[in-house]
Amino acid sequence: MNITLDAIMAAQRAIAGAVLRTPMLPAPKLSGLTGAEVFVKYENLQVTNSFKERGALAKLLSLSQTERARGVIAMSAGNHAQAVAYHAKRLDIPATIVMPVTTPHVKVIATAEHGAEVVVEGETLADAQARAEVIARERNRIWVHPYDDPHVIAGQGTIALEMLDEIPDLDVLVVPIGGGGLISGSAIAAKARRPGIDIIGAEAALYPSMWNAVKGDNRPIGGATLAEGIAVKTIGKLTLPLVREHVSEIVLVDEVMLERAVNLFLTLQKSMAEGAGAAGLAAMLAKPGRFRGKKIGLILCGGNIDPRILASIMVRELERESRIVSFRLTIPDRPGVLGVIATRLGQLGANILEVDHRRLFLDVPAKGAKLDVTVETRDRTHADDIFKAMEADGYRPARIEAATAME
Amino acid sequence: MNITLDAIMAAQRAIAGAVLRTPMLPAPKLSGLTGAEVFVKYENLQVTNSFKERGALAKLLSLSQTERARGVIAMSAGNHAQAVAYHAKRLDIPATIVMPVTTPHVKVIATAEHGAEVVVEGETLADAQARAEVIARERNRIWVHPYDDPHVIAGQGTIALEMLDEIPDLDVLVVPIGGGGLISGSAIAAKARRPGIDIIGAEAALYPSMWNAVKGDNRPIGGATLAEGIAVKTIGKLTLPLVREHVSEIVLVDEVMLERAVNLFLTLQKSMAEGAGAAGLAAMLAKPGRFRGKKIGLILCGGNIDPRILASIMVRELERESRIVSFRLTIPDRPGVLGVIATRLGQLGANILEVDHRRLFLDVPAKGAKLDVTVETRDRTHADDIFKAMEADGYRPARIEAATAME
Repeated sequence: MNITLDAIMAAQRAIAGAVLRTPMLPAPKLSGLTGAEVFVKYENLQVTNSFKERGALAKLLSLSQTERARGVIAMSAGNHAQAVAYHAKRLDIPATIVMPVTTPHVKVIATAEHGAEVVVEGETLADAQARAEVIARERNRIWVHPYDDPHVIAGQGTIALEMLDEIPDLDVLVVPIGGGGLISGSAIAAKARRPGIDIIGAEAALYPSMWNAVKGDNRPIGGATLAEGIAVKTIGKLTLPLVREHVSEIVLVDEVMLERAVNLFLTLQKSMAEGAGAAGLAAMLAKPGRFRGKKIGLILCGGNIDPRILASIMVRELERESRIVSFRLTIPDRPGVLGVIATRLGQLGANILEVDHRRLFLDVPAKGAKLDVTVETRDRTHADDIFKAMEADGYRPARIEAATAME
Repeated sequence: MNITLDAIMAAQRAIAGAVLRTPMLPAPKLSGLTGAEVFVKYENLQVTNSFKERGALAKLLSLSQTERARGVIAMSAGNHAQAVAYHAKRLDIPATIVMPVTTPHVKVIATAEHGAEVVVEGETLADAQARAEVIARERNRIWVHPYDDPHVIAGQGTIALEMLDEIPDLDVLVVPIGGGGLISGSAIAAKARRPGIDIIGAEAALYPSMWNAVKGDNRPIGGATLAEGIAVKTIGKLTLPLVREHVSEIVLVDEVMLERAVNLFLTLQKSMAEGAGAAGLAAMLAKPGRFRGKKIGLILCGGNIDPRILASIMVRELERESRIVSFRLTIPDRPGVLGVIATRLGQLGANILEVDHRRLFLDVPAKGAKLDVTVETRDRTHADDIFKAMEADGYRPARIEAATAME
């Protein structure tokens, strides 16, 4: 099968009704921030909260009745697992999903709840993959690859068709790269519809697999990333030449940018993005000059982020903006002092979040103590004012890293 | 002006293009949770992230050129302020917004950034209102009321038109009630389009102003609520008879339900709701039997929630689900014990978030100590298993309230 515009349009007809035609909307606050005209495609609103349903369903629908009866198998710790499980169940196709033992329990449960048989095996993705291949052979199951399959790539390409239906004159499409399925399909569709469009990939700096392959580079691959959805070591055989042909640039995004992008989607666009889902925005933050003044299409491709990690990101951003700050104060260790300081902070408009009183430091006099206070401020200027007031009051304040509880 | 379907349709034509036609989408996970068929109207995707733009813009567009030249004034600590500021600026109408001194600084800044003159005065909303009325008289400004105005009510009614355009056979519309503008306009539009539709209001239990007025009840009003957007003491003179006529039931929602609803919108639908924006879902949680089996339209009417509060809600929910738990352990106070316990917790699959070691409690032997550990678990069963293991190891665990840092 050739992955052409016709193939992608056929996939679009096939999956219509069973996969949500997600909203493609202007993001005025992101536009204000980046100086570009930004539009967001909200793929996190799919039932399983990622774009992966498109490719998975297109593949399942391409199977003959005989093939469907054999059942399917997939290996994934994430969104592809849920996508295959959900649509296989809908189509009454037996599905086995192999997940590595490191998969968060909630994702195992979610996949099983969609009706798939879940096999949790393998210390790493590679081990799980090996195990899945054994099962596939033993049981004669059809393989549903997360990206290196023409039907899957065609399915993912339907996103770009919908984006250009809504906003036909996009200048740039910024697309996250994991194995390359999403960007390959999207690029073929977008270039066919609008030959001049610029396709830019966003890859996690810790997993520059496509970057290395395209550039013949040899950057190290690995590490803990917020964008585990695109933390891929082995890119696709089908996708590599498509990326070479259609993608004008790959932007590597570091963890700070990914974190910031997740926070911006939440606080400015009121939408929950996982790390991989925010990679396109992270690329815009990393190279603002590349995008300024242009009409940009971003794919918010997934929203499955752990609530505790999201909460931590939000608090860390408040710390970066000095809306949450911690001071270590040196105080005389006698009754009533805490009351005086707390009252003073209240007068200054600082909302106390945490107090930690310590007498065991060696650098204070025997009759002295240290007091760590974490306060909420209005903004950076307010934080500075509070610091100066504590200084003027003689408490010798020192700024410290805050909210360790949430790291 | 009579608030009729025609008036609402005229408002719809007037505001088209300047206010987003927000998505109305199935919410399959909320449907699974509630046993109803739930559709959500995402008004949090408006530029200022709430539905208030509709009514504010409809009102501004109803003004003559002479009136526009006089300028407008509004009093609001929240979404109405930003809505009036944003659209007045767009239309080149001078706008003054009076905000009480308790208004969070970020909201003052946001309103000023939209180009309005902001006057921060008044300890309470009532004081700010009095001050605003003085300014309005002194400067001959046109008043833009947040709800008790026929143009505003007609503007808000456009939401229900759009909802029924998408899903014509809704059985129930669940609408948050503050002053009553949103529910009045929505009820008129919905009943005109579909006479049999059931309109249910959701009001904060701490602010049962409409409930009291409709039922002749005398419940206390006041207190700190997560739903400050609907924490209204004085309902509208226009809205009260409309609510009496069209609304079949008002559900009072308490703070726990509001918190849970905010968390569910975020974790299941990947969208950020403020307390008031989640009130409709909270009503469904409060009275599940009332909604089961029906086709429900929810208005996610606003998404402006403080990130720190949202982070806190997410962590508290994890605590409620026992995905974050704290134990107080009694341990022998000698070197190496912490290492033993930490290793044991690791073997049990508990991810340590926080450790607090205390020797100053009176109920431990002089050679003993207390250790508070906060861990992340897979689920409630896992949390119980960890507790039992600590018990079997002789650490006399006691469950304690966790994550005090985030309250």
